[in-house]
Amino acid sequence: MAMRKVAESAIRTLGSRSCQSRQLHATPGSKKIVGVFYKAREHAEKNPNFVGCVERGLGIREWLESQGHKYIVTDDKEGPNCELEKHISDMHVLITTPFHPAYVTEERIKKAKNLELLLTAGIGSDHIDLNAAANAGLTVAEVTGSNVVSVAEDELMRVLILVRNFLPGYHQVINGEWDVAAIAHRAYDLEGKTVGTVGAGRIGKRLLQRLKPFNCNLLYHDRLQMEPELEKQIGAKFEEDLDAMLPKCDVIVINTPLTEKTRGLFDKERIAKCKKGAVIVNNARGAIMDTQAVADACSSGHIAGYSGDVWYPQPAPKDHPWRYMPNQAMTPHISGTTIDAQLRYAAGVKDMLDRYFKGEDFPSQNYIVKEGKLASQYL
Amino acid sequence: MAMRKVAESAIRTLGSRSCQSRQLHATPGSKKIVGVFYKAREHAEKNPNFVGCVERGLGIREWLESQGHKYIVTDDKEGPNCELEKHISDMHVLITTPFHPAYVTEERIKKAKNLELLLTAGIGSDHIDLNAAANAGLTVAEVTGSNVVSVAEDELMRVLILVRNFLPGYHQVINGEWDVAAIAHRAYDLEGKTVGTVGAGRIGKRLLQRLKPFNCNLLYHDRLQMEPELEKQIGAKFEEDLDAMLPKCDVIVINTPLTEKTRGLFDKERIAKCKKGAVIVNNARGAIMDTQAVADACSSGHIAGYSGDVWYPQPAPKDHPWRYMPNQAMTPHISGTTIDAQLRYAAGVKDMLDRYFKGEDFPSQNYIVKEGKLASQYL
Repeated sequence: MAMRKVAESAIRTLGSRSCQSRQLHATPGSKKIVGVFYKAREHAEKNPNFVGCVERGLGIREWLESQGHKYIVTDDKEGPNCELEKHISDMHVLITTPFHPAYVTEERIKKAKNLELLLTAGIGSDHIDLNAAANAGLTVAEVTGSNVVSVAEDELMRVLILVRNFLPGYHQVINGEWDVAAIAHRAYDLEGKTVGTVGAGRIGKRLLQRLKPFNCNLLYHDRLQMEPELEKQIGAKFEEDLDAMLPKCDVIVINTPLTEKTRGLFDKERIAKCKKGAVIVNNARGAIMDTQAVADACSSGHIAGYSGDVWYPQPAPKDHPWRYMPNQAMTPHISGTTIDAQLRYAAGVKDMLDRYFKGEDFPSQNYIVKEGKLASQYL
Repeated sequence: MAMRKVAESAIRTLGSRSCQSRQLHATPGSKKIVGVFYKAREHAEKNPNFVGCVERGLGIREWLESQGHKYIVTDDKEGPNCELEKHISDMHVLITTPFHPAYVTEERIKKAKNLELLLTAGIGSDHIDLNAAANAGLTVAEVTGSNVVSVAEDELMRVLILVRNFLPGYHQVINGEWDVAAIAHRAYDLEGKTVGTVGAGRIGKRLLQRLKPFNCNLLYHDRLQMEPELEKQIGAKFEEDLDAMLPKCDVIVINTPLTEKTRGLFDKERIAKCKKGAVIVNNARGAIMDTQAVADACSSGHIAGYSGDVWYPQPAPKDHPWRYMPNQAMTPHISGTTIDAQLRYAAGVKDMLDRYFKGEDFPSQNYIVKEGKLASQYL
């Protein structure tokens, strides 16, 4: 049974660390699975493929219950009396999403005596304390690839919205106005501009591929340079030094996971290194940015625009400064939860649960914590 | 002198029609040139490259006046007492734009006894009565190509804004809300969808090229099929029959000039032929659509979204129904007047004026009316 192997191996690996040994419950038909999703309410009925909400619970209830498993679904994830807390002590599997993240803290992991598996419906498991999960011998896995296209498309949309200065025009329309000059004086074509991505993994590469016909100057910063053939095909130039790349860019797109190395990466000093008038798109994670530094740079005009769908925390509070700063084109966390993405990550979660019940390994790229070891990008 | 030849030829061509013969004024240093642009006011000083406004007048005043020409620039274009009317009787050249169109009616053309040349700073000369201009032996020319990239980029932005359901999320942010489900139930990836362009000329082709890496099913309707090699490279399938293409499309983009054949092309009946839930992007001309039919289709949900920057008339009145219909992502007419586009069409107008003064022909693709004949797409 793969899960048992995972845990046993984790225990071996972490033998010298303060780690809790657990007995895996591999008996078929005995699992308690908890899913935390956002509520759809009246919107659930509007689309039969809207599977990523509480009301549909990824569409796997019948399949799970027909095998004798118990399936609890909720959106109530915060505070000591929330629905999630009631199930922490005896759940075996917790399914969460980045869109309505249940923060899986060390404290919650310690309480979860039966927990074996943490599945992220989507990509990005930074709402989980991964070190604590590794220390506890848990397995953490995502549906890698399930929404990379969704996010890359969304990033290109945001780049165009900022560079072309879309929103002031839209505001004029709904306010009964017409003033082309007030838009045009800061509206540009994307063609010919320099676009740099910070991170060129699955999403960053797809963004670069979609940018290619726009005839931009494409740059990328990453830990590793691409293979020469792929680099040539994508048409982007490697920049080993982030701080050397930033001053060259008219457009900066953040495509790096949130790790201890990237938390607060874009602080006041780093934003100051960007070219005056550059725009920033960030669909990666809000905590990669210093919140106030972004707001200040938008207010001063050093950054000409900021767009993204990620915040910290989520949901963003009503007084989050990014709601009110000038030249923002923000949304709630939405890019990776299109209907197409939901269908893919629901299928991916079902596949991993099926493999878990059968004692099979997951697709290797899905593991974030496996056998007590963090995936390389989190080290 | 090319202009004289144009007029003489026009007179010959139109010999049997009721047409006004004119004596061209080819003497150097004697031209009165009128330009009608939008006003920039306080925005003029914000960007030295903002040349397309009244305040900068395409940046050609010094050049014109140093050669002894007179250059009048205004934004006042409507009604019998407007600034434009004061100059109609003795101007030789009128420069207009699609963004703040001076409507050049048959009546105005009849009053313009000295008029020889109508230049459009941008693309699209449908604000000019082209038959009247031809009958009067005038030459009408645009800066063909000056903003085709600008418009194609903008169209792709609008496709993504509608398909991905961007605006409801943005509204939540500025209203202090957070409700992912209210966005996600109608947010999709562009990947895998069928996109059809009505017209695949300079702009339509550039849109298709930019869509290629999005892995869509690309269709185009046009008068002529592309050369097989170009079609293969672009990766789009020819649809001879517009009404056969429309029901296949998740996304419809209008890329045809406004002519007598395309005026009102998308009326109630044709919109009814579109797939339920399709979205429409129209940066071509507002009058290609039946205004109320579009508003009704958005209200009923038959059309899931409509975005464009063209209206009829322009500026759009405060009570234009497209300002208030659901799921619209409209702006004032802006896509072709980015700073990059302004620099290109200002240079193109200057080049044509220079050729006009020297008696040289224009680049052939720029002519809309030449030697009394309309360009083929207007016939």
